Amino acid sequence: MKNFTWWNPTIVIFGAGTIPQIADQLAAVNVKSVLLVYGGKAIFKNGVYTQVTEALTKKGIEFPELGGVKPNPTIDKVREGVARVKAAMVDAVVPIGGGSVFDTAKSIAAGAFYDGDVWDLFESKASELKRALPIFGVLTASSTASEVNNIAVVSNLEKSSKTSFISPFVFPRVSIIDPTVQISLPEEQTVNGGIDVMIHAMERVFDGAPYVELMDEMGYALIRSMMKIIPELREDPGNYTARAQYAWAASLGHNGFLSCGRGERGDFSSHKLGHSLSLLFNTPHGASLAVMMPAWARYLYRDYPAPFARLTDAVFGVGAGSEEDMALECIERMESFFRSLGAPTTLRELGIGEADLESLAQNAIQFAPFGVLKSLDADDIMEIYKLAY
Amino acid sequence: MKNFTWWNPTIVIFGAGTIPQIADQLAAVNVKSVLLVYGGKAIFKNGVYTQVTEALTKKGIEFPELGGVKPNPTIDKVREGVARVKAAMVDAVVPIGGGSVFDTAKSIAAGAFYDGDVWDLFESKASELKRALPIFGVLTASSTASEVNNIAVVSNLEKSSKTSFISPFVFPRVSIIDPTVQISLPEEQTVNGGIDVMIHAMERVFDGAPYVELMDEMGYALIRSMMKIIPELREDPGNYTARAQYAWAASLGHNGFLSCGRGERGDFSSHKLGHSLSLLFNTPHGASLAVMMPAWARYLYRDYPAPFARLTDAVFGVGAGSEEDMALECIERMESFFRSLGAPTTLRELGIGEADLESLAQNAIQFAPFGVLKSLDADDIMEIYKLAY
Repeated sequence: MKNFTWWNPTIVIFGAGTIPQIADQLAAVNVKSVLLVYGGKAIFKNGVYTQVTEALTKKGIEFPELGGVKPNPTIDKVREGVARVKAAMVDAVVPIGGGSVFDTAKSIAAGAFYDGDVWDLFESKASELKRALPIFGVLTASSTASEVNNIAVVSNLEKSSKTSFISPFVFPRVSIIDPTVQISLPEEQTVNGGIDVMIHAMERVFDGAPYVELMDEMGYALIRSMMKIIPELREDPGNYTARAQYAWAASLGHNGFLSCGRGERGDFSSHKLGHSLSLLFNTPHGASLAVMMPAWARYLYRDYPAPFARLTDAVFGVGAGSEEDMALECIERMESFFRSLGAPTTLRELGIGEADLESLAQNAIQFAPFGVLKSLDADDIMEIYKLAY
Repeated sequence: MKNFTWWNPTIVIFGAGTIPQIADQLAAVNVKSVLLVYGGKAIFKNGVYTQVTEALTKKGIEFPELGGVKPNPTIDKVREGVARVKAAMVDAVVPIGGGSVFDTAKSIAAGAFYDGDVWDLFESKASELKRALPIFGVLTASSTASEVNNIAVVSNLEKSSKTSFISPFVFPRVSIIDPTVQISLPEEQTVNGGIDVMIHAMERVFDGAPYVELMDEMGYALIRSMMKIIPELREDPGNYTARAQYAWAASLGHNGFLSCGRGERGDFSSHKLGHSLSLLFNTPHGASLAVMMPAWARYLYRDYPAPFARLTDAVFGVGAGSEEDMALECIERMESFFRSLGAPTTLRELGIGEADLESLAQNAIQFAPFGVLKSLDADDIMEIYKLAY
């Protein structure tokens, strides 16, 4: 078990009917004005916009608005937000949405006190941050855990780069998670988000460090639960118990908890390889993982079978065979589970052609070498995209 | 899944060689003087006292000392500490020790800004607290999770009362957990502490609320890990991987995490019934639980078999039989595991006589009715002590 520091100061207020508490939390620390950040029409349809703005109005809190955040959010929208808060300072930023909206809000909150172009933070300057506007969010779609971590992922289309920055100043101060508002999400989003959650937990066990049962078991428990919950929600999107567990599992999957005791904190190569799909083909994040995780695993399982074999035993309940056979079984069962959810497991299914593999590889290579279980170079990356095809 | 708020602001710095960081953490927030709180000779023998005081001295931090905290700590020692900090204010309190030392330090930290007698906080006044001295601790024995929660348990011998107070102001600001210093703990303490950790996780699944798989599975994972780790440490007290997992499992077992989504947050009757043993007979906390949890379970499992049956399946790997049969199997396997560790499972083994049952019951009854799965009255309590005999 490796040394670690655990710190996660976000206050999570979780459950049905909790959304109006956002205004109480803001008023309690004397906030007078906030920048509301959101995406498209969903929060108007499901009533969340009304719930939030009525609660803010009651407390006399002003709320200039920045809408139009897109999935796979871009630095342009972040810059627009930074310009807004620099021109007319607010006391806090209030994302209302899913991971994309939270990531955009975090980037704006950090950019508010950064003198240069906010994209610098994504390249190397995040460690220079000294403060950020406090973030008080209302989550409407669970998967990335942005509501409970210190990471923001944003795309820069001019630079063909989708990447992240990390700063202790962008942990949300408060995140409200009301699972009832996720009942109206499209099935595809529930599936893709659920796969993202499972893979957050899986990536941690590929940390290349000596096996630590306690934390692996916590991850396996989360994966097993998600494998029951996602099909339950496909059958009945209104199943509150399943929605609530899905939402909380998503937060636990990437709030840092599962990294405790791990040296490299996991191998996030599938995320990196998937980011290029999202950037170039606008593939939903979860779908990109459903394709890239099995391909990445097929590429290297023979050399690193142990963590895959343990997953087979703990998650899929298959305990017999050589370590290598069990590792292959893990990959096949994972793919088969993703397919059972209607998710893609090949680039072909995403409409990506063989001619596109080169541009995918070129895009991912800008971050190479990356990977913990195996450090991937340009050739490895191309081979993995070929396997994914 | 019930609504909940999750907030745990403690920074945990975990691993071998981390102790000197206590001084860096204090210096980072400009602390100039602290009250060191500790117990007996252990921290002088294992070098922790030297590590801490050398680090403080290097940073120029003064450290008046309050030693002599006993297991099952008393309000007298707390009052002594409160008088000290009221007479000569320090900037922070630094417990160096296990749960008893942390609980004492938290109580002193809270009492520093409370005008009346500090015992009031344990009776009803904790909600009136507006602040406390910050707590920066070094943990030397894991089990109670006092290093990562907002609870302090203290005994008042004049009032024959062992009870707790809860306040958001007594979450330690920083807790340093170096598992290597626990290698020298007596085997009995490792066993008793480990039982405490297992029972913290078990008590949560007796919350009487509808079954929520995700969080139950997390608890089961923790219990299963502890059932491997404790025997490993009996065999080889110096097994670092086991020590480290033991320490982190202890923190996770009672930092509030396992209560997320549970209405009543668990049934802590075994703890309450055990407190009377500790108060009247100075029984170690973990030993009191090894006796009282099975007795409590035997008293009521027939009426509430489901959570016991699930434990049997998930923790002991036994899946056949009626729910009631499986619940009984759970209790028998639990007792048998405790006995395999050399722990007591009856009052008799603790040297408590049949004539003492009445005084035990009288002591526990002052807190009655208590309990979530079943609310216990005076008769119930007496019957459970009889079963424990």
